[in-house]
Amino acid sequence: MNSSLPIGIFDSGIGGLTVTAEILKLLPNENLIYLGDTARVPYGTRDNETIKKFSKELTLFLLKQKVKAIVVACNTMSAVSLSEIKEVAGKIPVIDVISPTVEFAVTKTRTSVLGVIGTRATTHSGAYQAQVRSLGSQFIVVSKACPLFVPLVEEGLVSGKSVEIIAENYLKDINEGNADVLILGCTHYPMLAPVIKKVSRRRIKIIDSAFPTAEKLKKVLAENKLLNLKNKKPKLIFYVTDNPERSLQIANLFFDGKFPGKIEKVKI
Amino acid sequence: MNSSLPIGIFDSGIGGLTVTAEILKLLPNENLIYLGDTARVPYGTRDNETIKKFSKELTLFLLKQKVKAIVVACNTMSAVSLSEIKEVAGKIPVIDVISPTVEFAVTKTRTSVLGVIGTRATTHSGAYQAQVRSLGSQFIVVSKACPLFVPLVEEGLVSGKSVEIIAENYLKDINEGNADVLILGCTHYPMLAPVIKKVSRRRIKIIDSAFPTAEKLKKVLAENKLLNLKNKKPKLIFYVTDNPERSLQIANLFFDGKFPGKIEKVKI
Repeated sequence: MNSSLPIGIFDSGIGGLTVTAEILKLLPNENLIYLGDTARVPYGTRDNETIKKFSKELTLFLLKQKVKAIVVACNTMSAVSLSEIKEVAGKIPVIDVISPTVEFAVTKTRTSVLGVIGTRATTHSGAYQAQVRSLGSQFIVVSKACPLFVPLVEEGLVSGKSVEIIAENYLKDINEGNADVLILGCTHYPMLAPVIKKVSRRRIKIIDSAFPTAEKLKKVLAENKLLNLKNKKPKLIFYVTDNPERSLQIANLFFDGKFPGKIEKVKI
Repeated sequence: MNSSLPIGIFDSGIGGLTVTAEILKLLPNENLIYLGDTARVPYGTRDNETIKKFSKELTLFLLKQKVKAIVVACNTMSAVSLSEIKEVAGKIPVIDVISPTVEFAVTKTRTSVLGVIGTRATTHSGAYQAQVRSLGSQFIVVSKACPLFVPLVEEGLVSGKSVEIIAENYLKDINEGNADVLILGCTHYPMLAPVIKKVSRRRIKIIDSAFPTAEKLKKVLAENKLLNLKNKKPKLIFYVTDNPERSLQIANLFFDGKFPGKIEKVKI
């Protein structure tokens, strides 16, 4: 395989751009294709069969674009449909957001209790529990579904009293427990980090998927001799299945107003 | 056409059940098929091309079930894709939620100013403005998109301080204007009526689509000699494209815990 081929990244919507931003920092010479399924977002409230069907369609789309690796920049799909995605991807390496984030998070806990918040599909899947337990039976996961967080971020409502009340309510059980690490188990949630911090216990460490996933991607590309290090003009392509204009507005929130490209609508 | 054939009702999700409840009261002998596209809800944040594509697919599904009339129990589709739905439906009568609601609302205003709240797609379409203006040039529409209301209802969060703050914010402009009627231009919104009433100006009349739409359906069936008046055991079928169990939970909220059937998952 040719190292100049693009990395493919997909998400149910544009939350995966938080991971993409970190990949761009860590691997600034790589060509990228991002695909956000904004015509069917959110995935996290849907059932597993539907999520698997949609995931396969996104994977096939990226494979047609001849990508050298696939990043599943979505916790819901990483939790529910990773094996289906890997099956469709064949020999192309697939990097999910859950395993690198968990590997990083367990190094940060002293109480061995990890809080995880995510969509309903992610928390119900038990994927975080399984991943954490595989690293040591002493670790305990306390998880909570926060299904309103994605629509709040998608509407740009990321601060203020109403969001604080909703967040405080969601985090009640985790705050009352013994967790000293809180994993933001959804790529939209970093936008709510200030609010989450405000309503969380003082000493809890908040961890999101972006940095550990980008690090893992770099490692996997290096192992496969697929790093593209000398490309001076990387090509960044961003596709969504609906609402490119609105997607760009929200994408700019993720990139401090400096989104590095345009967003095009595509059929999958 | 045979009057014993079912009435077909569709919506992007389960909000259309508020209209269905009113149809069941007014036409208790009719056979019904309800279809909610919960695998792709919400529609109101998507662009027109996507809404039209999805609408045609729902219409085709109901036509295959041999329905005698189609109720578009969704303001977004009534606003954006009614002509496409009618084209696909051919000779089958199609009843939307906007025209009957507007005809009813204009009889209730003294100031001739009507407030309309709905999804982004509905308010941007201008469909309410056009419909209201067709009934008299004296009428003025003040509209506001409330994109978080659908996720709040779908999560069952229909009361409390956080919802009140969000609702108060959305209704600020309408409250400061001269409207004496407020149309709930989305079939989910009746669930939020108590909150909306609480944060609205005291004398505003709140109007939803359910009753006017059921009345219009009855009239259209009568005109076409399609009323089914003697059927003692009406058959009620409820389909969704995802999450039948969760849909039933929320449906029960709409029916005061007495949902009149089961909900099955179907592919469209």
